[in-house]
Amino acid sequence: MAKLHYRYASMNAGKSTQLLQVAYNYTEGGHKVRLFTAKIDDRLGTGVIGSRLGVTREAEVYDESTVFDKLLKRGSDLACVLIDEAQFLTPTQVHELHFLVHDRNLPIMCFGLRSDFMGIPFPGSMRLLSLAEDISELKAICACGHKSTMQIRLDDDGVRVRSGDTVLIGGNNRYRQVCAACFYST
Amino acid sequence: MAKLHYRYASMNAGKSTQLLQVAYNYTEGGHKVRLFTAKIDDRLGTGVIGSRLGVTREAEVYDESTVFDKLLKRGSDLACVLIDEAQFLTPTQVHELHFLVHDRNLPIMCFGLRSDFMGIPFPGSMRLLSLAEDISELKAICACGHKSTMQIRLDDDGVRVRSGDTVLIGGNNRYRQVCAACFYST
Amino acid sequence: MAKLHYRYASMNAGKSTQLLQVAYNYTEGGHKVRLFTAKIDDRLGTGVIGSRLGVTREAEVYDESTVFDKLLKRGSDLACVLIDEAQFLTPTQVHELHFLVHDRNLPIMCFGLRSDFMGIPFPGSMRLLSLAEDISELKAICACGHKSTMQIRLDDDGVRVRSGDTVLIGGNNRYRQVCAACFYST
Amino acid sequence: MAKLHYRYASMNAGKSTQLLQVAYNYTEGGHKVRLFTAKIDDRLGTGVIGSRLGVTREAEVYDESTVFDKLLKRGSDLACVLIDEAQFLTPTQVHELHFLVHDRNLPIMCFGLRSDFMGIPFPGSMRLLSLAEDISELKAICACGHKSTMQIRLDDDGVRVRSGDTVLIGGNNRYRQVCAACFYST
Repeated sequence: MAKLHYRYASMNAGKSTQLLQVAYNYTEGGHKVRLFTAKIDDRLGTGVIGSRLGVTREAEVYDESTVFDKLLKRGSDLACVLIDEAQFLTPTQVHELHFLVHDRNLPIMCFGLRSDFMGIPFPGSMRLLSLAEDISELKAICACGHKSTMQIRLDDDGVRVRSGDTVLIGGNNRYRQVCAACFYST
Repeated sequence: MAKLHYRYASMNAGKSTQLLQVAYNYTEGGHKVRLFTAKIDDRLGTGVIGSRLGVTREAEVYDESTVFDKLLKRGSDLACVLIDEAQFLTPTQVHELHFLVHDRNLPIMCFGLRSDFMGIPFPGSMRLLSLAEDISELKAICACGHKSTMQIRLDDDGVRVRSGDTVLIGGNNRYRQVCAACFYST
Repeated sequence: MAKLHYRYASMNAGKSTQLLQVAYNYTEGGHKVRLFTAKIDDRLGTGVIGSRLGVTREAEVYDESTVFDKLLKRGSDLACVLIDEAQFLTPTQVHELHFLVHDRNLPIMCFGLRSDFMGIPFPGSMRLLSLAEDISELKAICACGHKSTMQIRLDDDGVRVRSGDTVLIGGNNRYRQVCAACFYST
Repeated sequence: MAKLHYRYASMNAGKSTQLLQVAYNYTEGGHKVRLFTAKIDDRLGTGVIGSRLGVTREAEVYDESTVFDKLLKRGSDLACVLIDEAQFLTPTQVHELHFLVHDRNLPIMCFGLRSDFMGIPFPGSMRLLSLAEDISELKAICACGHKSTMQIRLDDDGVRVRSGDTVLIGGNNRYRQVCAACFYST
């Protein structure tokens, strides 16, 4: 029985590396996979999944208008679907993916952030956490040495920003992953 | 470093049994714990946590007006707080509990459902999934033999009900835990 | 695809409670299970699995001469086999169980200790850790408040014993679960 | 409280990739790590950890004569020790590493195979499974599409070899990761 998998982490845990490793494992064994990433995340150019270790691979892009049901035809020989930056999925898309997993017995693995810089969950991440049959956390490291589970936003001067738009890709702002103790005490 | 723990499951997995076992383990070792359950859930009487295996234990009750910060005084010798039926916590209460874990280095373990009979997540469960440092699933079994991760509601005649109020405790309606494949195909 | 499951823990984590809960979950759903415990462990009488929470249930007994292949007939309607005190299985029996899981598509769940009071693994536990497709730890609590993963033996005067026979059931000796830091520092 | 971590997998799961990602995460945060790999594994040259994704990094080598207690001086500013090909550690070395974790509050992460091509556990892996406070599995994929947990050895003609020396690095023999069902049925 196929599962909807969700691998969540704070920033800089190695989510994309793990996605690329899983894709490699399937492909090496002769299995077919499809990779998606969010159109909004164009840090490396549109349609590229890249790891801080230096590995990159092309991917299809999705945005809130994407209908996965149309893209993932029934009866294909697809072994697995891998989705990066899955926090940008809409709740409706997550429901659609969950249905596709079980209707077509097709494993789908989503990788993404849990919550934004204010500790507020992304709507897509919430729905993934509510429906996935397999949830696991990738560990990143806080500056204090503990496991980080959250992130904070810094402005140009390195001062923490406590409110603002959830999404701010490619701005001059910076993010840093932190453990909850540092999130509350700094 | 203390953690916010969330043990989620569909109905009839044994959540209350595990809560009572953890409470027993702490108490047996001379450690002090406090147990809470939702006031709204009065199936066994108000303020009782009970397991289908036949074990019961008294607990304090909480509702949406409960301020845990007042109940859990700083500097007490408390080793752990255990909360049953945690799907009824408000998102604000979950944030408060998360802060208390890290401000007071106090482990808090919450046990509850993930989603309602329509597959919609409870607001409290969503916030727990977004903030907990340790998330794990307790396994219940679908009638088909697979792991159940969801529940459906049945009416008096055993016919599946697909819409209605999320909470309906002690009514004549009945619930049954199912795997996602059965959730979508029945 | 069925799995060999191994739930290990130090003493007093609640292994038997969890086994009895899983058995209850299957039975309640109309699924058939068989329970085994080690003949050598007669603390509650032969053939009884008991939880510190006060729940007990009869079980079949096994010893090193048991051939599970003969007991678990092909083609039965068995949904799951549950084995308590699995540290007393021989490596050969563990291999046999692993084969039966995959030959008959029959889930088998083993519950037991990992290592003895000297930190030396039980032969059966080692083989379970080497072959099980699903391994998880049940948490017990050290007197210091941390998770316990090991155990120590005490003599009649409460003094730690550092060598001796691995198995000593029902003697006047006592065991206590500890975390590794306490194991090495006391 | 630091832990001994063990990440096990069958071949071709991505163990070295994950090790290199963890090392990167620590180093990027300004934390100091030391990397070790087995001297016997010279597929990429001695003292190199390499991932099938194309990432490599130099590492110190260990063999059965290595005394980690001497190498890992007390009071250093080391944040983590990472050991690849950990199935080649001796049981005594694993005990030493476990002691060092708790004596010096130093996290040590070991990555390695669980069992050899006959399904027999490596002595070092067994001891890691018996002592590690944190055990997790990295998933590789069997040719049949299921999770692989074991490996088989093939000869020059691609015929399965069922007995022989456990270790045979760099020979003309080949290995392939398989699930248990394929291990028993082929």
